[in-house]
Amino acid sequence: MNIPTIDLPRIVVIGAGFAGLKLARQINSNNYQVVLIDKNNYHTFQPLLYQVASAGLEPDSIAYPIRKTLRKKKNTFYRMASVQTIDRATQIVKTDIGELKYDKLVIATGAGNNFFGNQSIEANAIPMKSLTEALDLRSKMLQNFEKALNTTDLVEREKLMNFVIVGAGPTGVELAGALAELKNKILPKDFPDLDLRLMKIHLIEASDKVLSAMTDKSSKKAHEYLKKLGVHIWTNTFVENYIDGTVHTNGEDFYSDTLIWAAGVKGQVPGGIDASQIGKGNRIIVNAQCQSPVNENIYALGDVALIQTETYPNGLPMMASVAMQQGAYLAKSFNRLAKGKSIKPFLYKDKGSMATVGKNLAVVETKRFKFQGIFAWFVWMFVHLMLLVGFRNRVVVFVNWTWNYFKYNNGLRLIIRPYKKKVDKTADKKSAA
Amino acid sequence: MNIPTIDLPRIVVIGAGFAGLKLARQINSNNYQVVLIDKNNYHTFQPLLYQVASAGLEPDSIAYPIRKTLRKKKNTFYRMASVQTIDRATQIVKTDIGELKYDKLVIATGAGNNFFGNQSIEANAIPMKSLTEALDLRSKMLQNFEKALNTTDLVEREKLMNFVIVGAGPTGVELAGALAELKNKILPKDFPDLDLRLMKIHLIEASDKVLSAMTDKSSKKAHEYLKKLGVHIWTNTFVENYIDGTVHTNGEDFYSDTLIWAAGVKGQVPGGIDASQIGKGNRIIVNAQCQSPVNENIYALGDVALIQTETYPNGLPMMASVAMQQGAYLAKSFNRLAKGKSIKPFLYKDKGSMATVGKNLAVVETKRFKFQGIFAWFVWMFVHLMLLVGFRNRVVVFVNWTWNYFKYNNGLRLIIRPYKKKVDKTADKKSAA
Repeated sequence: MNIPTIDLPRIVVIGAGFAGLKLARQINSNNYQVVLIDKNNYHTFQPLLYQVASAGLEPDSIAYPIRKTLRKKKNTFYRMASVQTIDRATQIVKTDIGELKYDKLVIATGAGNNFFGNQSIEANAIPMKSLTEALDLRSKMLQNFEKALNTTDLVEREKLMNFVIVGAGPTGVELAGALAELKNKILPKDFPDLDLRLMKIHLIEASDKVLSAMTDKSSKKAHEYLKKLGVHIWTNTFVENYIDGTVHTNGEDFYSDTLIWAAGVKGQVPGGIDASQIGKGNRIIVNAQCQSPVNENIYALGDVALIQTETYPNGLPMMASVAMQQGAYLAKSFNRLAKGKSIKPFLYKDKGSMATVGKNLAVVETKRFKFQGIFAWFVWMFVHLMLLVGFRNRVVVFVNWTWNYFKYNNGLRLIIRPYKKKVDKTADKKSAA
Repeated sequence: MNIPTIDLPRIVVIGAGFAGLKLARQINSNNYQVVLIDKNNYHTFQPLLYQVASAGLEPDSIAYPIRKTLRKKKNTFYRMASVQTIDRATQIVKTDIGELKYDKLVIATGAGNNFFGNQSIEANAIPMKSLTEALDLRSKMLQNFEKALNTTDLVEREKLMNFVIVGAGPTGVELAGALAELKNKILPKDFPDLDLRLMKIHLIEASDKVLSAMTDKSSKKAHEYLKKLGVHIWTNTFVENYIDGTVHTNGEDFYSDTLIWAAGVKGQVPGGIDASQIGKGNRIIVNAQCQSPVNENIYALGDVALIQTETYPNGLPMMASVAMQQGAYLAKSFNRLAKGKSIKPFLYKDKGSMATVGKNLAVVETKRFKFQGIFAWFVWMFVHLMLLVGFRNRVVVFVNWTWNYFKYNNGLRLIIRPYKKKVDKTADKKSAA
C-alpha cells in the first residue's frame, strides 16, 4: 500500500464505524502516523438504516465521507480497501490493494449477520447491516407491491404482501413500526387499487418479549405500541428454515416473499487472529485496556471486541455508545502512552437505551429516568440528530422528519436500483473491513 | 396487464418524463381511463443529473415517485413495466408484465444515447441519461482517485485522473464546470496526499464552439468561464474511437480511464413503429397535433416526437420545455375532444435557454433578454428549483445549494454502489419506456 514512511509509530485502524472513526479523529497525530482502512469510503450511521429501508430518509443523509472527517488531521491517511488477513508475526495487514506494516493494529470491524449456520435463511433473507442492504430492502418492498398489483393469484399476492421480521431488538422493533406506518398512512394512497389490508407485518422473537434487553415496562409499552400500529408479534418463536417462500418456525408457518433478518449479529473478525483469542459472539478477547492479552500490539474495539466484566459476563453490549466510548478511550490511552504516562482501564458508562416504534411512540431508559410516549419520541429524535456526523446531514434529516411529522409523506419511495436476488451471497463476506 | 376495464376510452401513455407526466396529470380523467407506463417508478429531473454525477446533490432529491404525482387522479393507473413492442393492428402494447389494449397511445419515451454506431465508445464510455448512470459516474470518479492514490505508475495515475467529456452542449458544459469546481475547491482537501494538479478535464466538441445552440455571446462567455475554471476545450474535434483507455480523435489523442458521453441523443422508439414513420434523429414523425399521420390513434411527445416547422426544419429542440408544453397541449386537446370541440395545432413557445458553468457563472437567453454572470446564475438556480417536482425536493436541493455556496462542500462524495464495468451493455436497451 502506498503510504509514506515517516519517523513515527504507525497505528493501523481497520473499520470506520463508531469506534474506529472516533479513535482516528481523537488520536494526537503529532505522535503517531494513523492509517484508517475501510472497504466503504463513508461512515454509516447504522441506527437509522431502518429509516432508509422504509423510505423515510435518503441514504446519503446517514452516510458521511471518511475523508471529510479526517481533513484537518495531519499524518492521517484513509485507504479504501478490504482486509484479507493479518500476519501477526511480521506485523503486516494484507488487503486487496496491497500490504501495510503496523506498529499497533486496532481492529474495529464491527459485527455482521449471524444466521446461526442456517443456510436456507442466509441464502434468502435480507439482512440490514449496511446501506446497500437497506436500499435493497427499500427496492424489494416497493417492487413487491408493484408485482402484487399485477397478479390475480391471491396466494401469490399474499406472499408478496407479507413481511416477516425476525428479531425484536431495537432494529426489528423500529423497522416493524416504520413498515406499519407505511401500511397505515402512505401506501393506501400510493396504491389505491390494491387492498392494503392484505399487507401483514409479522415480528418474530425467540425470547418471551420484545426489546428483551430493556426493562419490563419499556418492553410492555413497545409491545402495546406495535399492537396499536397493527404489527403481529410472535414471541417464544424461532425460525427453523425459510424454503420456497415459507418461513417455518416452532409454531406457526408464514408464507412470505420477504424475510428480514434482524435476529443475530456476531463479530466480523479478520483472518489471521488466533482461534483461541475469539470468544463469545465471535468477538476478539481483549483486556480492560482493549488490548489483546496475547498480542500486545493488537487492540479491538466496539462490536468485535469482547470485554467481559462482572456486570456483563457475556461482554459489553454491541451498541454504538460502547463503540464510541472505546474509540475515545483508546485515543486517550495512545495519547497518554506517547507522553510516557500510565493507562487506566476502560470503564463503560451506561448511557441508557431507547427505541422508537412510530410517530409519538418511543421508549427511553437511563439509569435515572425511564419514560415512554411522545416526550420519549422527541428525545429519541434529538439524540439521533445530534449523533449524526455532519451539519448538512442533520439539516436534511431534520427537514425529512419535520415533513413526515406533518405530512407522513416524503416521496422517497424510489426503486433506483431494482433488487435482484444475489447469486453468490458469500462474495461480500470475504472482506473484513 | 391487470387493469380494470371501464366504460371510458383508454389512453396508454408510455414514459413518465416531462411530457408523459404532464399529460397524465392534466388529462381530465372523468372522460378517459389513463394508464401511464414507465420502467422506473419515479420521474427523473434530467437537467440536474450532472449534479448527482458530480456529488453536488443526492439522487433522491431529483427523483419523484410517479404514484405520488397521480394520487388525486381517478381512473388513472401507473404500471412499472418495460414496453417490448406495439401491435398497431390489434392496438395492444406488449410489456414485460403483460399486454394492454389501448384506444389512444401516446409515446413519450424520450431520448437515449446516440453513439453513432461506434461500438468502442458504446462499450466503454459512461453516458449520463439516467439516475443510475449519474450514480455510476459519481462512484467511478471517486474510485479513480482512490486508485490513483495507490499507484506508483505515473502513466496509470494520469489515466485515472484524466476526464474526457464529449459534447459541449448544456450537459457537457455543466458537467465540465462542476468537475472543475470539484478539482479546484474540494478534492485537494479530501486527497491531501494526491497532486490534484494532475487532474485534467477535457471537453471535446465537434462544432466550432461550446453551447452551439446559443448565441455567439453566450457561447463566448461560457467558453471564458470554462477556461477560467481550468477546463481544456477542444472544438472542431471529434472522437474516432476509444480503445484501451485511449481516446482517439481527429486531432490530439487523450489517455483517460473515463470517457463521458454527452455528445449525441436519439429518439428511443419502441418496437412496432413502422420504419417509414421514423425521421431525423430517430424520432417518430407527427403532425402539428402531435399525432402520427398514418396511425391516427398514436401520438408522440417530447424528445421522441419529430415536428418539423419552418423555424425548426430538423424538428423542435430536444429539451424539457418542449416536452412539457407538448404534454400540456395534448392533455388540453384530449379534454377538448371529449367535449366535442375542435383541436388547435401545437405552437411551441420558445422560453429561451440557459446553462451554468459554476458558482456565479451562467448564461441565460430569452427572446427579450440575454445576460451572463452572477444574475444569470441566480436565475438558473431559481428556475431549476421551481421546476423540480415536490416541495420536499425543493427544500433539500435549496439546502444543498446554499450549503455549497458558502462551504463548497456538502459531503456527498459517497461510493454507495461501486462502479463496475457492465459485461453486457445491450441489456438495458431492450426496453423502450
